[in-house]
Amino acid sequence: MTSGPRLFSILRQGAYLIASIHTALDDSQLLRFQQDLVERIGRDRARGVVIDVAALDVLDSFASRTLRDMGEMARLRGAVTVIVGIQPDVAFAMVRLGMDTGSVSTALDLEEGLLLLDRATSTARRP
Amino acid sequence: MTSGPRLFSILRQGAYLIASIHTALDDSQLLRFQQDLVERIGRDRARGVVIDVAALDVLDSFASRTLRDMGEMARLRGAVTVIVGIQPDVAFAMVRLGMDTGSVSTALDLEEGLLLLDRATSTARRP
Repeated sequence: MTSGPRLFSILRQGAYLIASIHTALDDSQLLRFQQDLVERIGRDRARGVVIDVAALDVLDSFASRTLRDMGEMARLRGAVTVIVGIQPDVAFAMVRLGMDTGSVSTALDLEEGLLLLDRATSTARRP
Repeated sequence: MTSGPRLFSILRQGAYLIASIHTALDDSQLLRFQQDLVERIGRDRARGVVIDVAALDVLDSFASRTLRDMGEMARLRGAVTVIVGIQPDVAFAMVRLGMDTGSVSTALDLEEGLLLLDRATSTARRP
């Protein structure tokens, strides 16, 4: 189930983790991504996570629920999550099918996502 | 379906897009408006969108659902949406028919809409 090459990468940048999905993941790979990310948050003491889905041209209901769950798990581990790179067609389909990202923030791309994390974590740091 | 003259305009003002509907749009034109706007958010890296419906004296259920969907799509692409210029008669009809704008904010006119966007995006920027 969780063997084979990794189709995602999780890189550390300062206090943030940048998780990129390189290609459409099947359900077991998505769960592996979820596990790896939640574990890395602890190991790298991450304050924020950017999940980049720009490579995806489809985001089904399982994937969007998994992303939402990841945001919630990250929050429980003390990190803020932002999803970036949702393509226009994907946004269109998500709204049409009544899927959303719940309480997880979204931003246009990696740059905007990192800005959003800066704002979110500095609020938390010095209120 | 999506040919013919444009009955709406999408102008950029700083980090915002100002989308005006000039006349009543039929369903295919509304979908074209939706697609154009979602695409422009990415191209212009917009943080906020004002949708001006002051020229409309009717807003049917399809149109109001499309506007609501646009707000949600814009959010997935990292932009805040505000609908402005809902006429008294239109507001009356919308409430009577049980239609609403969902989670999309509304403001009286363009000026108030831009103020609302300033607040929404600056809260996020410097809390």
